[in-house]
Amino acid sequence: MIPNVLAERYASKAIANIWSAEGRIILEREFWIAVMKAQQDLGLDIPQQAIDDYEKVKEQVNLKSIMDRERITRHDVKSRIDEFCDLAGHQHIHKGMTSRDLTENVEQLQVYRSLLIIRDKTVAALTAMSKRSQQWRDLVITGRTHNVAAQPTTFGKRIAMNGEELADSLTSLEALISSYKVRGLKGAVGTQMDQLSLFDGDGARAADLEERVCKHLGIPNVFTNVGQVYPRSLDLRTVSALLDLASAPSSFCTTLRLMAGHETASEGFAPGQTGSSAMPHKMNSRSCERVNGFQTILKGYHTMASGLAGDQWNEGDVSCSVVRRVMLPDAFYAIDGLFETYLTIFNQMDAYPAVIEAENAHYLPFLMTTTIMMEAVKTGVGRESAHKAIKENAVATVAALRTREISHNDLIERLANDDRVPLSLSQLEEIMENNKASTGTATQQVDQFVKHVTAVGEKYPAGAAYQPGDIL
Amino acid sequence: MIPNVLAERYASKAIANIWSAEGRIILEREFWIAVMKAQQDLGLDIPQQAIDDYEKVKEQVNLKSIMDRERITRHDVKSRIDEFCDLAGHQHIHKGMTSRDLTENVEQLQVYRSLLIIRDKTVAALTAMSKRSQQWRDLVITGRTHNVAAQPTTFGKRIAMNGEELADSLTSLEALISSYKVRGLKGAVGTQMDQLSLFDGDGARAADLEERVCKHLGIPNVFTNVGQVYPRSLDLRTVSALLDLASAPSSFCTTLRLMAGHETASEGFAPGQTGSSAMPHKMNSRSCERVNGFQTILKGYHTMASGLAGDQWNEGDVSCSVVRRVMLPDAFYAIDGLFETYLTIFNQMDAYPAVIEAENAHYLPFLMTTTIMMEAVKTGVGRESAHKAIKENAVATVAALRTREISHNDLIERLANDDRVPLSLSQLEEIMENNKASTGTATQQVDQFVKHVTAVGEKYPAGAAYQPGDIL
Amino acid sequence: MIPNVLAERYASKAIANIWSAEGRIILEREFWIAVMKAQQDLGLDIPQQAIDDYEKVKEQVNLKSIMDRERITRHDVKSRIDEFCDLAGHQHIHKGMTSRDLTENVEQLQVYRSLLIIRDKTVAALTAMSKRSQQWRDLVITGRTHNVAAQPTTFGKRIAMNGEELADSLTSLEALISSYKVRGLKGAVGTQMDQLSLFDGDGARAADLEERVCKHLGIPNVFTNVGQVYPRSLDLRTVSALLDLASAPSSFCTTLRLMAGHETASEGFAPGQTGSSAMPHKMNSRSCERVNGFQTILKGYHTMASGLAGDQWNEGDVSCSVVRRVMLPDAFYAIDGLFETYLTIFNQMDAYPAVIEAENAHYLPFLMTTTIMMEAVKTGVGRESAHKAIKENAVATVAALRTREISHNDLIERLANDDRVPLSLSQLEEIMENNKASTGTATQQVDQFVKHVTAVGEKYPAGAAYQPGDIL
Amino acid sequence: MIPNVLAERYASKAIANIWSAEGRIILEREFWIAVMKAQQDLGLDIPQQAIDDYEKVKEQVNLKSIMDRERITRHDVKSRIDEFCDLAGHQHIHKGMTSRDLTENVEQLQVYRSLLIIRDKTVAALTAMSKRSQQWRDLVITGRTHNVAAQPTTFGKRIAMNGEELADSLTSLEALISSYKVRGLKGAVGTQMDQLSLFDGDGARAADLEERVCKHLGIPNVFTNVGQVYPRSLDLRTVSALLDLASAPSSFCTTLRLMAGHETASEGFAPGQTGSSAMPHKMNSRSCERVNGFQTILKGYHTMASGLAGDQWNEGDVSCSVVRRVMLPDAFYAIDGLFETYLTIFNQMDAYPAVIEAENAHYLPFLMTTTIMMEAVKTGVGRESAHKAIKENAVATVAALRTREISHNDLIERLANDDRVPLSLSQLEEIMENNKASTGTATQQVDQFVKHVTAVGEKYPAGAAYQPGDIL
Repeated sequence: MIPNVLAERYASKAIANIWSAEGRIILEREFWIAVMKAQQDLGLDIPQQAIDDYEKVKEQVNLKSIMDRERITRHDVKSRIDEFCDLAGHQHIHKGMTSRDLTENVEQLQVYRSLLIIRDKTVAALTAMSKRSQQWRDLVITGRTHNVAAQPTTFGKRIAMNGEELADSLTSLEALISSYKVRGLKGAVGTQMDQLSLFDGDGARAADLEERVCKHLGIPNVFTNVGQVYPRSLDLRTVSALLDLASAPSSFCTTLRLMAGHETASEGFAPGQTGSSAMPHKMNSRSCERVNGFQTILKGYHTMASGLAGDQWNEGDVSCSVVRRVMLPDAFYAIDGLFETYLTIFNQMDAYPAVIEAENAHYLPFLMTTTIMMEAVKTGVGRESAHKAIKENAVATVAALRTREISHNDLIERLANDDRVPLSLSQLEEIMENNKASTGTATQQVDQFVKHVTAVGEKYPAGAAYQPGDIL
Repeated sequence: MIPNVLAERYASKAIANIWSAEGRIILEREFWIAVMKAQQDLGLDIPQQAIDDYEKVKEQVNLKSIMDRERITRHDVKSRIDEFCDLAGHQHIHKGMTSRDLTENVEQLQVYRSLLIIRDKTVAALTAMSKRSQQWRDLVITGRTHNVAAQPTTFGKRIAMNGEELADSLTSLEALISSYKVRGLKGAVGTQMDQLSLFDGDGARAADLEERVCKHLGIPNVFTNVGQVYPRSLDLRTVSALLDLASAPSSFCTTLRLMAGHETASEGFAPGQTGSSAMPHKMNSRSCERVNGFQTILKGYHTMASGLAGDQWNEGDVSCSVVRRVMLPDAFYAIDGLFETYLTIFNQMDAYPAVIEAENAHYLPFLMTTTIMMEAVKTGVGRESAHKAIKENAVATVAALRTREISHNDLIERLANDDRVPLSLSQLEEIMENNKASTGTATQQVDQFVKHVTAVGEKYPAGAAYQPGDIL
Repeated sequence: MIPNVLAERYASKAIANIWSAEGRIILEREFWIAVMKAQQDLGLDIPQQAIDDYEKVKEQVNLKSIMDRERITRHDVKSRIDEFCDLAGHQHIHKGMTSRDLTENVEQLQVYRSLLIIRDKTVAALTAMSKRSQQWRDLVITGRTHNVAAQPTTFGKRIAMNGEELADSLTSLEALISSYKVRGLKGAVGTQMDQLSLFDGDGARAADLEERVCKHLGIPNVFTNVGQVYPRSLDLRTVSALLDLASAPSSFCTTLRLMAGHETASEGFAPGQTGSSAMPHKMNSRSCERVNGFQTILKGYHTMASGLAGDQWNEGDVSCSVVRRVMLPDAFYAIDGLFETYLTIFNQMDAYPAVIEAENAHYLPFLMTTTIMMEAVKTGVGRESAHKAIKENAVATVAALRTREISHNDLIERLANDDRVPLSLSQLEEIMENNKASTGTATQQVDQFVKHVTAVGEKYPAGAAYQPGDIL
Repeated sequence: MIPNVLAERYASKAIANIWSAEGRIILEREFWIAVMKAQQDLGLDIPQQAIDDYEKVKEQVNLKSIMDRERITRHDVKSRIDEFCDLAGHQHIHKGMTSRDLTENVEQLQVYRSLLIIRDKTVAALTAMSKRSQQWRDLVITGRTHNVAAQPTTFGKRIAMNGEELADSLTSLEALISSYKVRGLKGAVGTQMDQLSLFDGDGARAADLEERVCKHLGIPNVFTNVGQVYPRSLDLRTVSALLDLASAPSSFCTTLRLMAGHETASEGFAPGQTGSSAMPHKMNSRSCERVNGFQTILKGYHTMASGLAGDQWNEGDVSCSVVRRVMLPDAFYAIDGLFETYLTIFNQMDAYPAVIEAENAHYLPFLMTTTIMMEAVKTGVGRESAHKAIKENAVATVAALRTREISHNDLIERLANDDRVPLSLSQLEEIMENNKASTGTATQQVDQFVKHVTAVGEKYPAGAAYQPGDIL
């Protein structure tokens, strides 16, 4: 058998179990039994013996037998009805139901449970980011924009920057979870005609039945107007939320790959690990690269989801069927694998203060140019004139460093000698000395992030306590 | 000049104005002035004369002059600084600011204002759908799944089905709007270093400045931890919300195109309109097709947005710049054009009860098969056995109709003659008679949709009252 | 174990075998052995006994053992080297090689062999389309544009229209196959440094080695300049070709779903098949819908591929690794499943001439409007004036038909009574009579398509003879 | 008016002119005139005076007047017919034609001409890459995989690696151009019924007409079987080719951004240029970032194109219309802007040998590990044993360097002291000395690339000579 590579190599058991073929069939059978029980309670003539007999066999899952039936009926649900009925020796399930009364609700249950797991792992990721941002709260690094040295910041703040992004994605995920609606028992075109006719037109009992069934599922909201299927924009919203969640980890891992190139930080290297089968010295950012890969994968599943939304014909068709069989589980495996990997990175990553310090020293005069410009402006010189003068000297300094014409950054001296900048060498040196660790509000920002994550962790303690499994 | 086709052909003035080059430059200048005023209030030495002089020239927008400057500096913001300063005769704007302190906030203002407009148009669309679903609340149509006749429903319910989908997209949009955060004045790498140094390290004044600036923008939330830019996952979330909104209209328009093919409904045909330059009789669903086209376009802009999220290097780069120049306005033009078109369809559409009735009559015995099966089950026959018997007769009937071997649907007679179905012809005819307009809870579902939209309309009265402009 | 749903439910064994875990490991081991043999031939000291011992164990694939190794090394190739070496009791494989010297070439071999299979299935699809277009070459149907009756055509021509589209996609696939390049033995950064140093700098022998290895693979072209990996735009081109191939089948299946809604044609219904678990009468276009679903899936894998192209850092990284593990096999499973389904549809589909004829009769006067206009123009009336007059009468006729005010299409009478159209009733009736089967060059076009497919089939006889397996 | 930002800021005049509204209308009028002339030649009664009068006014393009007409007809082509006829005072154009006979062919002409321009710019890019790869053919740099130092290569080879990728994309583009088919005069549903009826059923004259018209267009191939429209998979193939072309430039620019971060190379910095409005010292890779941005944009247009392919209903609809109005021109503007930017980068870029040399020296012992391993293997030690020993020493060296415990890379000494590596210090030093510039076949590979580009340039001399315009 060809395994699902995302499920087998990357996703955790918790997610894989929800979506396994056997697990799903049991969910379906439990759903049928819940419907039968409610129908019996509400007065339909369903013998208790039948219910008991169905209960007895519900975990006897024979995938091959079901598949053999499907080869004839070419209808997956009909095959599973027939299998379950033959096992139990009754024909009492699926009354007043259409296939989608079963499959939509069960698939939504799979989605909903998966969303709760992913929410907890997001909380775990935030917790891990919070810890690391505290640890390196004050570690001054060379902030870079356009990949070029810009101004000082701290490594803790760099993490918190990505952390706040992830926290916002969590807010968005929470909104999805709390508004998530299940389709309910709506019948073939959404009018509940068959449930009504089972109950001889008694709308109250049909409504009661649906309510009991939703309670069985544990999803708080239910649609009113649907067709054969629930609107696929809900699937789109779901996969969008997963793609959203992947953004902050992906940006952070990209940055960690960049830092590894400068040897200022790394994702760590486990004992026994091999970096390259050819080059024994290699310590690659393979887990970070993998996180980036998962984000790319999620974009693909998002494309699939967006191919379904807005494409419903009349009361529904099944051009979505094969797509959802692939997209829904695989998107969850991918985001789950992403978080397992990301959490492992945070457990093992490292920063190299000595290398960081050397880099800071090399760029310090450049990092101070806005401060020097501000000070120059305070003396009365025009902002744009000061900008021009500093730029010319900075560009010359860069050029001299790159040719090794000079070996240390002498921008300060150059500025002191430029009449357009009304600051003496000693003033400039003082600016340098006073501001070399000038990271503005970086540390306070970290503190706010930590505080926010603490609150999130109190709301979702299981998430905050979660630790990843071993990854490949 | 090459016009933007989405802005010129499809979008409304309201959206186009927000994103026009001139409009944007004025927004920027107002932003700089707001910053200067706040800096002055907070003690920076900015002469009132300078502020007045900037105010005086703020609407003198010379795009060519700015472009000429940019050809030299290769820096768009620097060009606009120089232009504005030369116009005013001062160098007091942009103090302690980096380009992104200007552009991020102004672009977010454009996004935010656009979101409010789109929210109102969504409310307008819901209102229009609610009216039509009331109008056709009881018009029984042949519900179709897999594009094949399935069970009766009503046209009102079909509209309400898509309407509830749109209402859920609105819920999602509201969540985005209420949680939307602006970047604020954070400086080159997000540490506020330069604003702090302007205020000699006085954090309280720097915070006060940012607060005043956010108040000027009118966006309620502000980021704490950012880099040079706000996280691009917020743009992704924005475009995702627009794509989400396009789903229900796109599904409904697809269905209306299908109905037009059966002549059961149409999007209407304006006086003077030409359907085809070749075929004078043609009345095409061209507006519906256009709505579908807009959804496809939005998928493309979503792809662009998802190419930016998760791809930030360090404190930020501008590989997003050209993408956002295209994607943000164009996505808003597209969704705006979609709603203008969609609202026009709802103003002009029509249903053809005589054709609908003929279709219902043709399919009625098929539409009743689940009811017949339910009744058969009540007599004690097994559900799956009844299913098999009815299927065989139905398939034979379909075959006979398709060959014109029979000219009317005689399924009832066939079933009456089949021993496996324990119902007499008169019983079957009674089922037919009693259930021919059997649309279950369809009308109650419509009523709930209408009620929901009424509440939405009360919350956003301007949206509920909005009427589209003329479309091409 | 969680199975890959595309491989297990939809793809054929031929494709699945290429991509199975066991199959791949054997391909790798054969590759290593081929390299060793070539190295030995070229003078490296590799004992024949070692090669023999490796040969002996090459089919002993223990996935669990390999996975256990990988949990420690976190390096998949290193684990497979160690496993193979321990099995054989030697350390002679992988000399002068980096991981990618193995994996790139083997994965390309998988891709290349899959492309050849898909090419053959495309030929099979063309053959099937050609047969059906011959069968219905002269069956006049109501051509539709915008889903509205337009002009007559034939069903054969409708099929040939989609057929020519597929033939063009095949041309594009052939261009890809014939230009497909394998990476070759290029070493860690593409300089062949280690192979050169194995051969003491002898470039001729290194080149000879690569040539022998490419011959083993059977791929005719080889890259010159690569890094650690071959350029991912080649993967993009590959998945683009698959998505391209899906276009014509997807359009045709969409049209067949539309035709099923009008009961003019259907995809067929196998004995024993169940259309709906609720509605026994249903005969759904579920296979056509599935083809559309596969196309949506392929768009998703294309998104993944486009996320890799253009994103290479320096000489290469592995952010592509997890993506390619998913995207490459799954894209091939999807296109393979698409063709299996599509071929089944062509084996089972049906057209309903009686229904088609009724539709033609209903629309005939409309379908003739361009001809009437042409004839009017010949009498000297202006084209645009005739267009206007006909349009007004046609629109009125449509309206009357839709309200059942009239029961047969009386456009001809209306035109005869309109002075602006200088044609008498008898002239108009003659036009109708002469042109009712007026399908222009439709049948000649079919003939050209058939001729083209015959030539294609002669070029690829195995493809032309291919029959699909049973589908679910 | 809202300008198209891609056309106005980034694309060249050559491309913009093809797609301008005025330009397109003139192309349409020329097409109509060509049809009239051919119809006249083939015996239709079209007065020479009419043709002359149309010719006279064909460049009188009044967009406002056309738009005013369209507001009434809601049909763009009908408006343009009416405008042109009123200007000329005749009604002789568009005979036997449907709108798509005009628009499809004219749009394909726009596409085809654009493709030729882009082909030439691709050749220009290859030429520029070839020059730079020659210039830096022998400049040894530290090759990186996973962004970590791996083995030596040369800067010329790094460029050639991306260059060969682009050359392959060109091959693919050439295949598209040479197989590009125009739709021709096929009528409303593709049967040529109206042209046939114009010629009283004379198929030879209808065929002759189409041939003359295709000759006017200058596109060598023509479809046989089409519907109202040509298959949209051809548009998909077109945009796929553009996205393909963007891959190599995007990878190269990503790498140049990385190199700029290490100051080993830069895209250059023009006199007068400003890097940052805040930080005067900044020299950002803004053009490289822009190239990456264009690739992201192209992915979006590709998504739009893939939303059209495979979605044709029957003989065609116009859900593609608004999409193609946006996607086709904008995709060409984007790829054109990309090449203009990319060519500018190659004109201005710089490498910094002094910095490069320092980096090489720092990493040299690591870069030699595969060579050392090869030499160790030659002495008889097992490959995997040597790998393990070297890895342990290399990891320890890295750790010591990162903590600044050591300041120079002492891996060689460590290996000399490790018994598992049977090489003495002097042997190791000799390996280092002999191989420090060991770039394998890198330079020969460059030579092959240069040779290939020379041949391409001879085939397309205008492309090879092309120089970009000034960019913003």
